[in-house]
Amino acid sequence: MQYVAGMALGQEIPAVSELVPSFQTSPDRYRHWKLKLDGEVARLSMDVQEEEGLRKDYTLKLNSYDLGVDVELADAILRLRFEHPEVRAVVITSLKDRIFCAGANIFMLGTASHPFKVNFCKFTNETRLAIEDASAHSGLKFIAALNGTASGGGYELALACDEILLIDDGSSAVSLPEVPLLGVLPGTGGLTRVVDKRKVRRDLADFFSTVAEGVKGKRAVEWRLVDQAVPKSKFEQVVADRARALAAKSDRPKAERGMPLGPIDDHRFVTVKLNPQLRVAELTVKAPDAAAPSSPAQLLEQGSDAWVVRAFRELDDALLRLRMNHLDVGTVVLRTQGDPARVLEHDRFVASHREHWLVREVLALQKRVLKRLDLTSKTLFAFIEPGSCFAGSLLELALAADRSYMLDDSRRPTALQLGPLNDGLLPMSNGLSRLQTRMLAEPQRVKEILSHPGPFGPEEALAAGLCTFTPDDLDWDDELRIALEERASLSPDALTGMENNLRFAGPETLETKIFGRLSAWQNWIFQRPNAVGERGALTLYGQAGQRPHFDVRRT
Amino acid sequence: MQYVAGMALGQEIPAVSELVPSFQTSPDRYRHWKLKLDGEVARLSMDVQEEEGLRKDYTLKLNSYDLGVDVELADAILRLRFEHPEVRAVVITSLKDRIFCAGANIFMLGTASHPFKVNFCKFTNETRLAIEDASAHSGLKFIAALNGTASGGGYELALACDEILLIDDGSSAVSLPEVPLLGVLPGTGGLTRVVDKRKVRRDLADFFSTVAEGVKGKRAVEWRLVDQAVPKSKFEQVVADRARALAAKSDRPKAERGMPLGPIDDHRFVTVKLNPQLRVAELTVKAPDAAAPSSPAQLLEQGSDAWVVRAFRELDDALLRLRMNHLDVGTVVLRTQGDPARVLEHDRFVASHREHWLVREVLALQKRVLKRLDLTSKTLFAFIEPGSCFAGSLLELALAADRSYMLDDSRRPTALQLGPLNDGLLPMSNGLSRLQTRMLAEPQRVKEILSHPGPFGPEEALAAGLCTFTPDDLDWDDELRIALEERASLSPDALTGMENNLRFAGPETLETKIFGRLSAWQNWIFQRPNAVGERGALTLYGQAGQRPHFDVRRT
Repeated sequence: MQYVAGMALGQEIPAVSELVPSFQTSPDRYRHWKLKLDGEVARLSMDVQEEEGLRKDYTLKLNSYDLGVDVELADAILRLRFEHPEVRAVVITSLKDRIFCAGANIFMLGTASHPFKVNFCKFTNETRLAIEDASAHSGLKFIAALNGTASGGGYELALACDEILLIDDGSSAVSLPEVPLLGVLPGTGGLTRVVDKRKVRRDLADFFSTVAEGVKGKRAVEWRLVDQAVPKSKFEQVVADRARALAAKSDRPKAERGMPLGPIDDHRFVTVKLNPQLRVAELTVKAPDAAAPSSPAQLLEQGSDAWVVRAFRELDDALLRLRMNHLDVGTVVLRTQGDPARVLEHDRFVASHREHWLVREVLALQKRVLKRLDLTSKTLFAFIEPGSCFAGSLLELALAADRSYMLDDSRRPTALQLGPLNDGLLPMSNGLSRLQTRMLAEPQRVKEILSHPGPFGPEEALAAGLCTFTPDDLDWDDELRIALEERASLSPDALTGMENNLRFAGPETLETKIFGRLSAWQNWIFQRPNAVGERGALTLYGQAGQRPHFDVRRT
Repeated sequence: MQYVAGMALGQEIPAVSELVPSFQTSPDRYRHWKLKLDGEVARLSMDVQEEEGLRKDYTLKLNSYDLGVDVELADAILRLRFEHPEVRAVVITSLKDRIFCAGANIFMLGTASHPFKVNFCKFTNETRLAIEDASAHSGLKFIAALNGTASGGGYELALACDEILLIDDGSSAVSLPEVPLLGVLPGTGGLTRVVDKRKVRRDLADFFSTVAEGVKGKRAVEWRLVDQAVPKSKFEQVVADRARALAAKSDRPKAERGMPLGPIDDHRFVTVKLNPQLRVAELTVKAPDAAAPSSPAQLLEQGSDAWVVRAFRELDDALLRLRMNHLDVGTVVLRTQGDPARVLEHDRFVASHREHWLVREVLALQKRVLKRLDLTSKTLFAFIEPGSCFAGSLLELALAADRSYMLDDSRRPTALQLGPLNDGLLPMSNGLSRLQTRMLAEPQRVKEILSHPGPFGPEEALAAGLCTFTPDDLDWDDELRIALEERASLSPDALTGMENNLRFAGPETLETKIFGRLSAWQNWIFQRPNAVGERGALTLYGQAGQRPHFDVRRT
């Protein structure tokens, strides 16, 4: 990945650097989690090292976490899916005594810039959704074994699991203390999952979300906040029993070997070039440089350098770095390069073997990365140029874009092409394919477009509604330049709000509720003096004798 | 309505008073709209008087509007429903030359306080939704006859209509210039309706929402932004034809007389008492003091003082005043008083005659008012005490509450009782009844509860999940006081965000998308320096030579 160094960060330079060194890790480098494999049940234990936060100006007490802790969690879940097909149930627990997890570190949050807070919450939300995705689509079931109190983000992590077992020791509770203690919302899906996933009655949820000490024991079960409250003496046994019971429901294979995920430090298929003047990042995804695997077994042989895996891991990495480390990039230009036939050949391999456990993981990875693209708060423009390969899975990049520009020049032809993965196998957060979302007005056209023989040239693509504009070679450079300049002149906040409202037409899901409704409210609160002002609740938390001061006007 | 005067408005007193003198008006007092009745087609023409805004520090040029203009619009739509059953289609147009409506007045918005902006947008959104509700449920169809440019809120008003006809005169356009000109979102449902109601393709919507000058003529039709672009010479004829065609689809009655809506200045059924120490408003709704009408004809005789109409109009008025004029009220205590049998008797009348055009309007009014309650950014606690009548339509108040407290004292019995209106006839914005939303976890219990014979005492109500807590007489006073004090101690912003996330579990609709996703993002943007800071786009709009200055970090 090529980065031009030294882009300005905007006018409010945070007091401490918030650059994230890397989103890549591996179990041998984990500092905060222990992954223990034991046949069909894995144990993922949180043991946050207080002094090993990403920044040194806070201490990660009581299994509180920062982004570094969550990057490890995301990595562990990804590796369980690819590297350990034998694992059918994962027990998420803690190695600390009487505490499962205290949630996101408050001093970290209190001193973070607004964009960092927002991006941090987005990443942790994506990680929680990846847990639910693994359960729904990979037969990997999760048990939250709360061996102590789970508060805030700790309870939200539990909410993402299939079952929540809480130790019944007279003191351990689940809680969402954000509103009463910090004047902010539980930012990782908590409110949504409480009423929409666990279907806790709304008045009980109201009470629960306003009592800092939370709810424990029998009441937590009665209110549906946890599935069981288990006496200490039986806790490990019940966890083991439930893990086995959930494992029995899994359709993961027996006695298969996994695919180790190698490093992707040196990007081969995804490059990013920054253009600081226009605040643009030009992101190019290259087509496969080799034939598709002939079978899942051959894919396993090729390992994680196979295009279907590596290209999407690199894209994921590039998106995360753009989001967190390049805040002043407002527009991402999406380009592709290479032979579209190669892309479609790889897509066909994925589509036809998607019942195979490993290929299923590949498809799920591609799906999640493309969702990450949809959820990236940057304008996305696709430039469809000669030599590009917007076909199949890479066509999704153009369909994810806020606009697409396709060169119409008979001497330098361009094309878009559909393949089997465009037919619902890579759904957006709203549950529809990008093509369906695009064609909400005329759903019957989805089928027509999918059955179109061969590629779409510019005129056909325009008529089919697959691209936005088709400038000719005389206009191309100017039109693109003007589009990028105009975009750069608009309010970055208004664009974020606008794109969030236009990208997700159609049905709403738990995911879109979390990223639309919940996150938007949280972002609002993260701006309010009542939370982040000098005397705001988040700012003052933990300062002895200091009480927050509120503007009492209800808004 | 009893108001204690002089409650402090919080620390940031706005430079000008934002108190709204009244939400009640009538056609003879309209300043900005002309309502012309002509058989089955009514004409509602916007003719905003520049100097007659609610405040005198802005001028309502180009049919731009402030809250006063929208209060008249809301009144006109309500009266068309109740007073003019013969009207089947409404043409919304403008009396200004070459301009339909320029949207919300920008200088008004730019100088308004944050809470006022948010409440203003909420009210205008509710008015637009009332238009769509009248079309869906009353057979009252709306045509936006855009005889000139409709920009921003002007186009959003058109989007709420069933059909949009745009004059094709070479210059008149529809536009959403908020993002490019003001750095905010179109705040009245525009983005949502463009992609979700009119199903404009998302990339076209993106382009449209970033070009200040908008889109006109044939392109506006092709992009689905309007239904027809009509040459000037034929405009009036086509509007008339379309109005007749839509009127033909209406099921409104012929030759019926309407019910004039009398004044409600002196509240009879709804009282509000303010408790400034706890920042609480105690809102009490009284049961009917007379028997239910025996027939729709008798209801018509009784006129708008009949309880089924008047009590809900008063409740609506009280809610609007609490929202706009009592910002520092954080909690509304909901009480009822009177004979529950009377309430149920009136409910049965409404339920059994709901196919009658007038009773249909009554039911729709009750539904809309209760939705306004759900959407009020104040904590709602229902106190169920001896002498209360939380039955049927008034039970909805308790079901709308964030929590309910029911006295459990055998000497002073309390009860909750269901009636025919609780069975889906008064749905929330999410399309479910409040009972269904409450019972998401156990949908089968809805039927059980509805078929329960007679009232629920405290124990039964608690077991059925109809109330939250049942303190006994020893605990009652303390528990309520503590609940109110605790609530008053929490961040008003965090409570607003929390309640907005907990109240609307279950499915999402256009309405919940507008109030959840769109409004939450808009509220965020309304806080951002890029919009409202000293050099923000909204602040600087219209100041010659001043360009906004943006923090370019994408969030």
